[in-house]
Amino acid sequence: MSDPRIRPATDDDWPQIWPFFAAIVAAGETYAYPDDLTSDQARDLWLERPPGLTVVFEDEGRVVGSAKMGPNRPSRGDHVGTASFMVDPAASGRGVGRALAAYVVDWHRTQGYAGIQFNAVVETNEAAVHLWRSIGFEIVGTVPGAFRSATHGRVGLHVMYLPLG
Amino acid sequence: MSDPRIRPATDDDWPQIWPFFAAIVAAGETYAYPDDLTSDQARDLWLERPPGLTVVFEDEGRVVGSAKMGPNRPSRGDHVGTASFMVDPAASGRGVGRALAAYVVDWHRTQGYAGIQFNAVVETNEAAVHLWRSIGFEIVGTVPGAFRSATHGRVGLHVMYLPLG
Repeated sequence: MSDPRIRPATDDDWPQIWPFFAAIVAAGETYAYPDDLTSDQARDLWLERPPGLTVVFEDEGRVVGSAKMGPNRPSRGDHVGTASFMVDPAASGRGVGRALAAYVVDWHRTQGYAGIQFNAVVETNEAAVHLWRSIGFEIVGTVPGAFRSATHGRVGLHVMYLPLG
Repeated sequence: MSDPRIRPATDDDWPQIWPFFAAIVAAGETYAYPDDLTSDQARDLWLERPPGLTVVFEDEGRVVGSAKMGPNRPSRGDHVGTASFMVDPAASGRGVGRALAAYVVDWHRTQGYAGIQFNAVVETNEAAVHLWRSIGFEIVGTVPGAFRSATHGRVGLHVMYLPLG
């Protein structure tokens, strides 16, 4: 939790998040968000309320990445968390995703979650799959052809899981 | 689609669905819905709007089961469907779930879906797991301990998938 570049997001951060959020969704390689989200709708989806949390990664005063986290399911499933990540493509390769991932794992551990589940990791998003595996996530299974990648066509969606504790 | 006992649900059906919906959630064995849902909140969750659909199974004029269905994800994931089922425990063992399952599979096929994904089938819900397997669903993977069953404690949640077409 001690990375000084990462802090909770506020509504005021949204104008900096939205451009790369929109670019990443439009690229069509990593997330099945609706194509036609307005900025306001995307903000409501992305900025979590308790018990969830959304954070931003700042680099020299500029927001270049964000992650949201919280329970994957309500009630009898709320001991397993989940998270989503967006990193400005212009800031890729600088460890932003890895720093956010470390924060997310620490946060879930501190909050007492039993594990973290990713519900839909696009199998051709090799950078993400590699990152998650490198910090201990395992592929629980892959739903075949469940994502229509802009460049690869129908590709699988991994369910990934990291036990904590 | 031709089972005469199954038809689209209307708001007027909700007073007959809500008692068994609430009983099933309260039993704590099959669904991670919030515990504290009001009838109105549950109705909004259960009664799908297009492109989704909710149906009821009527037995001698009484609604004894319901299923909802539609895209599992928006946009680049909307070619894979999903569904949820609720059968009045008082009507169990009479093939209501199997008839609703057949309807759901036919509906997805007719609508042109590539497959049907169940995101969270409780592994100790043996009747459900057996039914889905008997109609061709396979277990893609199991997230360990992701559901707190009222009687079994932490049990796994299966991701299941049926390819169509």
